Amino acid sequence: MKHYLSNEKVIYDMSPNNEPVIDINKGDTVVVETKDCFSNKINDESTTLADDFDFSVVNPATGPIFINDAEPGDTLKVRIEDISLAEKGVIELFPGLGVLGNSVKKARTKIVHVDGNFAYINNMKIKVTPMIGVIGVAPKDGSAPCGNPGPHGGNMDTLEVTIGSTVNFPVYHKGALLSLGDAHALMGNGEICGTGVEIPSKTTLTIDIEKKSINNPYIETDESYIFIASHKNIEAAVEIATRDSVMFISEQKKISFEEAYMLTSVTCNLVFSQVVNPLKTVRMIVPKTII
Amino acid sequence: MKHYLSNEKVIYDMSPNNEPVIDINKGDTVVVETKDCFSNKINDESTTLADDFDFSVVNPATGPIFINDAEPGDTLKVRIEDISLAEKGVIELFPGLGVLGNSVKKARTKIVHVDGNFAYINNMKIKVTPMIGVIGVAPKDGSAPCGNPGPHGGNMDTLEVTIGSTVNFPVYHKGALLSLGDAHALMGNGEICGTGVEIPSKTTLTIDIEKKSINNPYIETDESYIFIASHKNIEAAVEIATRDSVMFISEQKKISFEEAYMLTSVTCNLVFSQVVNPLKTVRMIVPKTII
Repeated sequence: MKHYLSNEKVIYDMSPNNEPVIDINKGDTVVVETKDCFSNKINDESTTLADDFDFSVVNPATGPIFINDAEPGDTLKVRIEDISLAEKGVIELFPGLGVLGNSVKKARTKIVHVDGNFAYINNMKIKVTPMIGVIGVAPKDGSAPCGNPGPHGGNMDTLEVTIGSTVNFPVYHKGALLSLGDAHALMGNGEICGTGVEIPSKTTLTIDIEKKSINNPYIETDESYIFIASHKNIEAAVEIATRDSVMFISEQKKISFEEAYMLTSVTCNLVFSQVVNPLKTVRMIVPKTII
Repeated sequence: MKHYLSNEKVIYDMSPNNEPVIDINKGDTVVVETKDCFSNKINDESTTLADDFDFSVVNPATGPIFINDAEPGDTLKVRIEDISLAEKGVIELFPGLGVLGNSVKKARTKIVHVDGNFAYINNMKIKVTPMIGVIGVAPKDGSAPCGNPGPHGGNMDTLEVTIGSTVNFPVYHKGALLSLGDAHALMGNGEICGTGVEIPSKTTLTIDIEKKSINNPYIETDESYIFIASHKNIEAAVEIATRDSVMFISEQKKISFEEAYMLTSVTCNLVFSQVVNPLKTVRMIVPKTII
């Protein structure tokens, strides 16, 4: 069955206490309207993240979606069938935001026109890389602001959360309570200034459930398995993503930890997702050719 | 003119005090024999980095090469024409080494056969990614062990230090004093267990000099400019690589810092090089399409 979910109801915290706005069965497809990370409030270059901007409306996620049959201990498998971008996106600068935020003296907005396939910046035509920044389930314990990444997903800002990928989440609560938002037309690994080209979307998902438990989100693409970890300390995130990858390789190939660790070192790629949220996100890309 | 430099003379510290083993002119080509990072001492799986291994012979670099006309303040441009790999490489595990080193109980060696194009690991045939781990000039102040990365280059363990790339170094001392070693047949971004497939090489370089000064090494490939930074703290390395990239984009395109910072965020990719040496190395990949 195919559902349509408008962006009328959004949440700012992922939490088991949020009332579902729709319930669907596994195997169903749902088209989800998402607002940009500024709740579609910035529409011209005279509006910036200056002092009068309402930060309570940052990082809205549409949902939550209740998936019938999703039980604690399952894996929720979210296949991204399509991401249809709006025609206008924004890049934001704000003092203190991003890797070089201390060198930014004044808030600033850049409007970016997007025609579906290309974004237009400074007279350049750049192929878009549509992706979803915020996507996740209700966390295990308590609630998490949608701006935070974690084992439940959230603001992972990972480029491979894109068309054709399947994103896998641990299910902590009945129905899983999936929500998403914060699409990007463009973003580099790292999301250096704190934003990509932030843009509303209509994102089409097909949902499935697997009766196995996982500790952290991972993505499956045609070429790779990708293990995601977030932590305030990048080294700690690196260790989590590495351990998840090594254990996965060890289990899949039925080889020892030592064999899997060596194989990871010589064939897998550690990549930054984002380094600009309070918790940083990294990922390990495991090529399917070694599995 | 084409020169040949055997691996008879190696150094373990990059330093202005090292006696050059050859002097060449700019425009010259030199084929450099390099030892693997264990000085070619590990030739079978019964030899490991156990207590009796002589760690004083780790990370040898062939050289230094004195480049006539290279003056302090110049940029040394090292084009890698070819990397010819030996037929046998090694992967090493050692307790405490690498991201999951605390889970490694026993030193272990894996011998990897390499036929030029492919490495053979656990019945898998994997396309090689030949690259040079250690390459650099004499540092500005004092000496640096070849195992360390820094503004002078050194043990950067960066995948794009490979065939077809031009690696650019700041010149601190007359003649620059270039040396190199530590080739890899395979390595993933991060070099997770502390080694790649470590292997001897014959590496062919063509050397040029540019009369401009730079702060840190950068690589030029057909597609990208890549800015490299090393620091004991990953966040600090990220900031250095970001600032170098933003300043480069700003200068090349004659746009403001703010415009360049936004462009970096939405189009450039922050990548791990290695996270297993005392100083960690990251790089920012700037696509030529935006320059």
